[in-house]
Amino acid sequence: MTETSTLQMLDAFPAAVPVGATELAAATDTCLACVQACNACANSDLLEPDVATLRACIALNLACADICAATARLLSRPGQWDLLTVRDLVTTCVRSCTVCAEECDRHAEHHRHCAICAEVCRACLRACTALLEGEAFPAPGLPAAT
Amino acid sequence: MTETSTLQMLDAFPAAVPVGATELAAATDTCLACVQACNACANSDLLEPDVATLRACIALNLACADICAATARLLSRPGQWDLLTVRDLVTTCVRSCTVCAEECDRHAEHHRHCAICAEVCRACLRACTALLEGEAFPAPGLPAAT
Amino acid sequence: MTETSTLQMLDAFPAAVPVGATELAAATDTCLACVQACNACANSDLLEPDVATLRACIALNLACADICAATARLLSRPGQWDLLTVRDLVTTCVRSCTVCAEECDRHAEHHRHCAICAEVCRACLRACTALLEGEAFPAPGLPAAT
Amino acid sequence: MTETSTLQMLDAFPAAVPVGATELAAATDTCLACVQACNACANSDLLEPDVATLRACIALNLACADICAATARLLSRPGQWDLLTVRDLVTTCVRSCTVCAEECDRHAEHHRHCAICAEVCRACLRACTALLEGEAFPAPGLPAAT
Repeated sequence: MTETSTLQMLDAFPAAVPVGATELAAATDTCLACVQACNACANSDLLEPDVATLRACIALNLACADICAATARLLSRPGQWDLLTVRDLVTTCVRSCTVCAEECDRHAEHHRHCAICAEVCRACLRACTALLEGEAFPAPGLPAAT
Repeated sequence: MTETSTLQMLDAFPAAVPVGATELAAATDTCLACVQACNACANSDLLEPDVATLRACIALNLACADICAATARLLSRPGQWDLLTVRDLVTTCVRSCTVCAEECDRHAEHHRHCAICAEVCRACLRACTALLEGEAFPAPGLPAAT
Repeated sequence: MTETSTLQMLDAFPAAVPVGATELAAATDTCLACVQACNACANSDLLEPDVATLRACIALNLACADICAATARLLSRPGQWDLLTVRDLVTTCVRSCTVCAEECDRHAEHHRHCAICAEVCRACLRACTALLEGEAFPAPGLPAAT
Repeated sequence: MTETSTLQMLDAFPAAVPVGATELAAATDTCLACVQACNACANSDLLEPDVATLRACIALNLACADICAATARLLSRPGQWDLLTVRDLVTTCVRSCTVCAEECDRHAEHHRHCAICAEVCRACLRACTALLEGEAFPAPGLPAAT
C-alpha cells in the first residue's frame, strides 16, 4: 500500500502523538472508508425493491456513518486529546461497526452492497480495536484518573 | 418555553420511542446548542490576543462540537436504535461536555464566550445524563444483552 | 422569544462580525433545527408502511440535513470567513431546503412529520435568504474579487 | 492503485448513477482525504509556536473540512439526487479547497503539514472540477430547470 496522506500528515505533526502513527492512520482511514460505505449502503438499500425489509439496515448504516465521521475527525486532530473521551468514542465506533456489519451480513447474499459494507465495517472495527489496545488508553472500568 | 420543532417531530414519530420524549428532545436540543457554542468558542479563542494560552480550549471545543453533532443526529433518529451504541455515544458526549466545560471555566473570567460556552456544555451534559437515567438504557458495566 | 445561546455567543465574539448578528443567529438556529427535523423526518419515513413511496423524501431529507449541518458550523465561526465560500454554501442550503420542503409537502396530508419538516425547512430558507440579502455578501454572478 | 471500496460500492449500486463512476469515486475519496488533511492541519497549526500567524489557516482549514465532509456524504448517496443542489455543493467545495490551498501555500515553506494539506486540497478541487465537467450537471448561470 502506498503511504496515504493521513500518514504523511501524522509524520508532519509538530508534537508527539500519544499513540502509534501506523495504528492511528489505519483507524482514521478505515473510519473514513466506513463513512462512505455506510452512506452508500443506506442509499442503495433505499433503492432496492425490498426496501421494507431493509429498514434496520438503513438506520444502522446511518448511525455507523455518523459515529465513524466524528471518530475520524477526532483521530485527525491528535493534539490536546482528552484520552478518555477519545477512548470512549473509538469504543463506541467499534460497537456500531460490529452491529452494522452483523445486520449487513443478513442481506449480503442478496445485496452485494451489504456484503461490501460489512467488510468495510469489519476493517474499521479491527483497526479501531488495534488502536485501543495501544498503551496510551486507560483500560475501561479502571478508575479514570483525569 | 414554547414547544420546539424537535418535540413536535417526536410527537409525530410513527413508532414507539424507546425513551421519554421530553428527555429525548431536551438532550437533542442541548446537543445542537452545544455544536453552535463550541464552534463559536473555538473561533472566538482563535481571534483572542492570548490565543497561545487557549490551545487546549480550542481543541476540546472542536472535539465536543463533533461529538455533540453526532449525538444530535442519532438522537433525532430514534427508530431502529442499537441501544448500547446510543448509550455509549451519549455517555461519551457527557464526558466531552464535562471536560470542555472545565477548560472553558479556566478562561471564563477573561473571556465571556468561554463562560457562556461552559454553561451550554453543562446544560447539555445535564440533559444527556437525565436521558441516560431513563429505564431504556442498560446500565454500563452490566453484561450487555444485545 | 428568549435570547438563544447563539445570540449570546455572537455578542461575546471578540472581533467584528461581517453580517448582522440577528440575521446570523436566526440563520444558524434554523439550520440546526433543520438538521434535527430532516434527520427525524427521514427516520420517520423509514418506519411508515408506505416507505417505498417515500424514497425521494428520505434521500432529500438526508441531503438537506448534511448541508444544513455544514452551514450551521460555518455560520458559528464567523471569524476569518471567505465570504464567497460562505455565500455559496448558504445559497446551496437555500436550494436544498426548498427542494426538501417541496417533497415533504407532497406527503404532508398523510404524514404529519412531513408537514412539520416542510415548515422547518421553510423557516431555514427564509432565514438564510435574509442573511444573503445583507450587504456583506457579493452578489452572485458578479466577477468574484477574491 | 487498487480499487477502493468507494468504487466497489458504486459498482454495486442498484440504480443508474447520473455521473461517471470513476469521476464520482475520485471526487468522494479526495473529499474524504481532505477532511482528514484539513482537520490535521488545523490541529497542527494550533500547536505551532507561531499559532498567532496561522489564524486564517486554521479557520479556512476547518471550513474546508466541514464542506468536504458534507460533499463526501452527498456524493456517497447518488440515488435521488437533486442535481442542482449537488452541483452547487461541489462548486462550493472547489472554492473552499482553492482558498484553503492558497492560504496553506503561504506557510508551506515553514510548515510541512501546510505543504501536504495544500496538495490534498488541490487533488480534491481537481477531482471535483472533473466531476462537474461531466454532462450530468446543468451549467451554472443557465436558467435552472428544477
